[in-house]
Amino acid sequence: MAENRGVVYIGPGKVEVQSIPFPKLADPQGRKIEHGVVLKVVSTNICGSDQHMVRGRTTAPAGLVLGHEITGEVIELGRDVERIKKGDLVSVPFNVACGRCRCCLEQNTGVCLTVNPARPGGAYGYVDMGGWIGGQAEYVMVPYADFNLLRFPDRQQALAKIRDLTCLSDILPTGYHGAVMAGVGPGTTVYVAGAGPVGLASAASARLLGAAVVIVGDVNPVRLDHARKVGFETVNLSLDTSLADQIAAILGTPEVDCAIDAVGFEARGHGHSGSQNEAPATVLNSLMEVTRAAGKIGIPGLYVTDDPGASDAAAKHGNLSVRFGLGWAKSHSFFTGQTPVMKYNRALMQAILWDRINIAEIVGVQVISLDQAPNGYSEFDAGAPKKFVIDPHQVLRAA
Amino acid sequence: MAENRGVVYIGPGKVEVQSIPFPKLADPQGRKIEHGVVLKVVSTNICGSDQHMVRGRTTAPAGLVLGHEITGEVIELGRDVERIKKGDLVSVPFNVACGRCRCCLEQNTGVCLTVNPARPGGAYGYVDMGGWIGGQAEYVMVPYADFNLLRFPDRQQALAKIRDLTCLSDILPTGYHGAVMAGVGPGTTVYVAGAGPVGLASAASARLLGAAVVIVGDVNPVRLDHARKVGFETVNLSLDTSLADQIAAILGTPEVDCAIDAVGFEARGHGHSGSQNEAPATVLNSLMEVTRAAGKIGIPGLYVTDDPGASDAAAKHGNLSVRFGLGWAKSHSFFTGQTPVMKYNRALMQAILWDRINIAEIVGVQVISLDQAPNGYSEFDAGAPKKFVIDPHQVLRAA
Amino acid sequence: MAENRGVVYIGPGKVEVQSIPFPKLADPQGRKIEHGVVLKVVSTNICGSDQHMVRGRTTAPAGLVLGHEITGEVIELGRDVERIKKGDLVSVPFNVACGRCRCCLEQNTGVCLTVNPARPGGAYGYVDMGGWIGGQAEYVMVPYADFNLLRFPDRQQALAKIRDLTCLSDILPTGYHGAVMAGVGPGTTVYVAGAGPVGLASAASARLLGAAVVIVGDVNPVRLDHARKVGFETVNLSLDTSLADQIAAILGTPEVDCAIDAVGFEARGHGHSGSQNEAPATVLNSLMEVTRAAGKIGIPGLYVTDDPGASDAAAKHGNLSVRFGLGWAKSHSFFTGQTPVMKYNRALMQAILWDRINIAEIVGVQVISLDQAPNGYSEFDAGAPKKFVIDPHQVLRAA
Amino acid sequence: MAENRGVVYIGPGKVEVQSIPFPKLADPQGRKIEHGVVLKVVSTNICGSDQHMVRGRTTAPAGLVLGHEITGEVIELGRDVERIKKGDLVSVPFNVACGRCRCCLEQNTGVCLTVNPARPGGAYGYVDMGGWIGGQAEYVMVPYADFNLLRFPDRQQALAKIRDLTCLSDILPTGYHGAVMAGVGPGTTVYVAGAGPVGLASAASARLLGAAVVIVGDVNPVRLDHARKVGFETVNLSLDTSLADQIAAILGTPEVDCAIDAVGFEARGHGHSGSQNEAPATVLNSLMEVTRAAGKIGIPGLYVTDDPGASDAAAKHGNLSVRFGLGWAKSHSFFTGQTPVMKYNRALMQAILWDRINIAEIVGVQVISLDQAPNGYSEFDAGAPKKFVIDPHQVLRAA
Repeated sequence: MAENRGVVYIGPGKVEVQSIPFPKLADPQGRKIEHGVVLKVVSTNICGSDQHMVRGRTTAPAGLVLGHEITGEVIELGRDVERIKKGDLVSVPFNVACGRCRCCLEQNTGVCLTVNPARPGGAYGYVDMGGWIGGQAEYVMVPYADFNLLRFPDRQQALAKIRDLTCLSDILPTGYHGAVMAGVGPGTTVYVAGAGPVGLASAASARLLGAAVVIVGDVNPVRLDHARKVGFETVNLSLDTSLADQIAAILGTPEVDCAIDAVGFEARGHGHSGSQNEAPATVLNSLMEVTRAAGKIGIPGLYVTDDPGASDAAAKHGNLSVRFGLGWAKSHSFFTGQTPVMKYNRALMQAILWDRINIAEIVGVQVISLDQAPNGYSEFDAGAPKKFVIDPHQVLRAA
Repeated sequence: MAENRGVVYIGPGKVEVQSIPFPKLADPQGRKIEHGVVLKVVSTNICGSDQHMVRGRTTAPAGLVLGHEITGEVIELGRDVERIKKGDLVSVPFNVACGRCRCCLEQNTGVCLTVNPARPGGAYGYVDMGGWIGGQAEYVMVPYADFNLLRFPDRQQALAKIRDLTCLSDILPTGYHGAVMAGVGPGTTVYVAGAGPVGLASAASARLLGAAVVIVGDVNPVRLDHARKVGFETVNLSLDTSLADQIAAILGTPEVDCAIDAVGFEARGHGHSGSQNEAPATVLNSLMEVTRAAGKIGIPGLYVTDDPGASDAAAKHGNLSVRFGLGWAKSHSFFTGQTPVMKYNRALMQAILWDRINIAEIVGVQVISLDQAPNGYSEFDAGAPKKFVIDPHQVLRAA
Repeated sequence: MAENRGVVYIGPGKVEVQSIPFPKLADPQGRKIEHGVVLKVVSTNICGSDQHMVRGRTTAPAGLVLGHEITGEVIELGRDVERIKKGDLVSVPFNVACGRCRCCLEQNTGVCLTVNPARPGGAYGYVDMGGWIGGQAEYVMVPYADFNLLRFPDRQQALAKIRDLTCLSDILPTGYHGAVMAGVGPGTTVYVAGAGPVGLASAASARLLGAAVVIVGDVNPVRLDHARKVGFETVNLSLDTSLADQIAAILGTPEVDCAIDAVGFEARGHGHSGSQNEAPATVLNSLMEVTRAAGKIGIPGLYVTDDPGASDAAAKHGNLSVRFGLGWAKSHSFFTGQTPVMKYNRALMQAILWDRINIAEIVGVQVISLDQAPNGYSEFDAGAPKKFVIDPHQVLRAA
Repeated sequence: MAENRGVVYIGPGKVEVQSIPFPKLADPQGRKIEHGVVLKVVSTNICGSDQHMVRGRTTAPAGLVLGHEITGEVIELGRDVERIKKGDLVSVPFNVACGRCRCCLEQNTGVCLTVNPARPGGAYGYVDMGGWIGGQAEYVMVPYADFNLLRFPDRQQALAKIRDLTCLSDILPTGYHGAVMAGVGPGTTVYVAGAGPVGLASAASARLLGAAVVIVGDVNPVRLDHARKVGFETVNLSLDTSLADQIAAILGTPEVDCAIDAVGFEARGHGHSGSQNEAPATVLNSLMEVTRAAGKIGIPGLYVTDDPGASDAAAKHGNLSVRFGLGWAKSHSFFTGQTPVMKYNRALMQAILWDRINIAEIVGVQVISLDQAPNGYSEFDAGAPKKFVIDPHQVLRAA
């Protein structure tokens, strides 16, 4: 049991599965942490935000072990762990959080004040998020386990739904957070920018929240086909018909009640020619155009403080040319930031266990082995309408 | 009684008091409106947003009668008016609202869908806000009177506090809206950008809401002196000491819980040299810097869709270079738009009548005659720490 | 068109269809109201709360025209009606509301302060609710039409879904209000006391709101069969197995997250012998038992200030023996009152029009003619699992 | 340092200061708890709810060490404690909470699911609250210290305000919770039933929250005198003038916006003769009478599940004769339960440190020695308008 293997970032465009150390109950600074546990990883997903690193759009160092979407079985306990037991099957929120700082006490675990010396907010396997080792691996360590971990109530039931439950660590709560921030509720009309997994999870969440109709937009026709297949309306942003006109064709009005940005800073322009190029404020500006007066805009899509790979000088420092006056004229509000997963994951687990949301089908879960991870990264990057779930111990294939 | 006089916009830098028609119960399109009333104006204030027009920063046409901050006595009733009676002393919310559209029913009267054919939201005496005649005049017409008007419960009591109550039509609810949007509550630390009347009203509102400490920032030393005199902490943005450092000197930490932008699109840069020039995204960017993780930013300051007088091309179309990635990293949320006055004015009236807020003193109410209005405009534009209140019938001087 | 027929309360247990006057644009005090409209009634439902009157449990006078669940076509307009047009197909909220008082402005139209001289809150065709003439008739008058009426966007679409849309005047918003008050959201477990139409509408609403599982309880086996047929879990309160044990058999735990009282003051006891007798606090006390700590209890079921037909002296004055200490120990909160329909009906209309809720099927809509109304009353009173919808002009049978 | 002394319940009407064991890092079941700390008690207050036990109205066993309002200095740390350091000056929320269960994660620490095997919710030194040893002593143990404790940022500043800060453990957050639950905000009118410390803390909180006017009612004239002296309006419930009439004399209307029950189950009747006798539902019923339609009623006053000392049989089992139909007719909502102190104490600490609330003066803090505690109990029980604060190490007298 003293061995471990994980997905390691080598350099732009390149990841490898390598031998890595077996997890220790210690923090990134090397201090012993008796509140941690070691998990045997049952499933661990590749995330769109991992792609930002792998594409070389961040300052992630070579050697970083990737992976922040983790589900696992507890195999080792720190001495101070009290609620969690060996053998528990658990979902790990992607945010590392201490449960003791002001932000954690107020349920803002996405910006925990203590787990990352550099800034608020920690995560596993991510640049600038505190140095916690990633979980695209056979084993991983989770600190503050009693606080962070969501225990599945019944092992057999959980294994039977593990392809859905694996989405609780990030993708589903993140999509849901987008929908909640956007004010989605029964009877609302919703536009989701982006038909990748976060966009689809937002759309699925909007439906769970009772939305009347959910429209998903993208420039990728394969992803749009998938979105339609799982029941959503779509708009094709690579066409020269405007977004507003395409929405009007569906709703009879060019505006929606609620809008969600599930794209973030690597957005491309709209229209035939625009969609070839990055245009980082395009999504925000288009959402202001199509959101009704007094509407809310939820922004789970990632925007960065520094983007060395940006095409223009301003964007390199995170500055975007936002048509802020338009949003102001329409009394919009804007909600940003990392999802505080713990605010939502228990309720979403219940929705899964009671068959209220088929999230695996909607995001296109495809199970792969640990060794297939590099291939999963490149296929996902190419725009496949899939959510790759790594199964390092061949548990899901069994399930 | 068939005569009327009002403050008229002539051209950049110029307003005049002229004879204007006595108000009719008719809408800007000339249709009879039985739901309207005519008011004898008791007090009507000059607003910072009037200055945008008078400085020539908008497309306001010559001949526009100014004034959207109105308090008056009802002297004529349309047939459909039922709740309001002749002789009532009333506060007029600056938003014109119908009380029957979706936005009005949901208390978003700032973006009423019917009173302005061009876009959501109407106001008196303002460019692009539906063409309703302004109230810096002796008499003015108010439509949908039963819905819009706030009646003062007792005439004598109201007259005794009229310098405070005149602030209910805009300035106090607008400042309050900024504070509410920013999440101000008991024990919070608050930074208000801008020591003009809206900033001071935000600061006063923050205090009423229980804020622990309220800090006001500006580049104008006279306004800062006034802010200190009425009890707020201040930071001087024309100094080369950073905003964060000045906040830290007061609080012991460089961040506040809640931030309010009471400046808007005509912002100037910070620091000795920066404060000479317009820099329209400065306030937004600095607020992201000094607001704590998970904090909220209320933006009552006006941002426009088009700014022909802007110094750079992007800003001419309302595009600002916003460091959005910084806000995202801190999980900020941003709240914009015209204040829906009716959401707040009844409660704020109660706060005034029971002596819980001395808003007239805080914003520096100075009563002037109608004929002194042009002088009030220029003195206010020069940065006087005053809120000019026009007294067209010499009622306030009597009060 | 100058004739009219309606359902009239004659005395305990007896209603008749009689000729009644054609509606006038006048209020119950006889004053002309130019803000009113006359509707040709398209559908009008019998409500459980009508039964309280018809059973003689209130002080309703003989001659009262019944009916507060009204959908219709506008055929006559007061002079001051502006938004609503002749020919519009509209849903009438059961609450009569003025749109101009403090409660209406704050969206609390269920307790409008002006339409009922006796107390806050008005309704059509109901004792003590202001004297507005009921709408179980061919024609009815609706005051403050611009404020009150919900217009269906498309006539043909509306007629095609009229059996669902007829539920917007009361039953669906009332059930929904219960669910919202109880804190129902995605992933919650919900118990609804009462399998009559309000209970079923609460259950349907809970599902729309994303509840993980919805359990409905009643003593009537026919109603429980229906509830199961439309997809809900059930508990049979006439059994001697306790409610908590029956819930535990479904959920694995004896408590739910959210509870809804859709029964009200005419509750019967639980268990084999108890269910024979009225026990007005039974539902409240049992909900405290089965609701989790910090849970919320929504109470759309009607409780009255005076109940001359009550079996014990205290209940005659609306006093119930509530085990308040139990709720307090569990930090419960309790939400009561008439549903403010306008807060919800537009969103619920959207949910119906976009096929998100099959409310007609769930509540068991059965269309009857006006002349069949007396029979509908008695069949409903006998516990039929149906919602009787009167079709006075044979429009629904056509639809 | 291995010695300790505390206030011990002996039997109805009798408490004594006795030698008790020095605290161990162990839970009531004797298990070692590495997450706990030992405090040297700096101040510890006598609470009105202690009186329920001391009067013999509960099943508290002889020998119980009293005290749940604790402020102290950390002198010993368990191994798992990370955030809290030796020497920290801290406020202890009266609720014992684990920080890891569903209720704690949702900020409902008043009903923590794990610290009390018998029911949700734990407290120090209180019957049925989990067996945690009370803190009216020289030393006390606090479990889950990183989660539970509120650290004062500066020791000298804290000592200078210690008479106010001692109110953060219970009385101020409890009063504040009542006001928040009742919907108190700027401009509201508020009625607080009960002029004891909780009532006064509610009144002070209402003022901090911006209430326009706060009215406090009681039957005790000495307490009413004190309430007036610290700035509140009062009504005397032992008079034969009705509560509604007394409120109308102050406000001009017999109803308030918000009502708070700071009395609980040991309420007495109103009026000259009524005030001689217990009438446990009197406060609730009177609050429904004087609260406006759509108003909220906050109920921090304690109601019990079982009251062996009650005067009538129903009340012995926590059943009260509540005029529930009246509340329903007015669309009231009711909020109950133990205050989740951690939701509020940080913000209230800030309000104290920045001089926004003079809670010590308002509740009448009187500092006594540990040996004077029995006398404090009896003086408080006799209705003295004082909040007794025990100073076991003579720190406050020094401060």
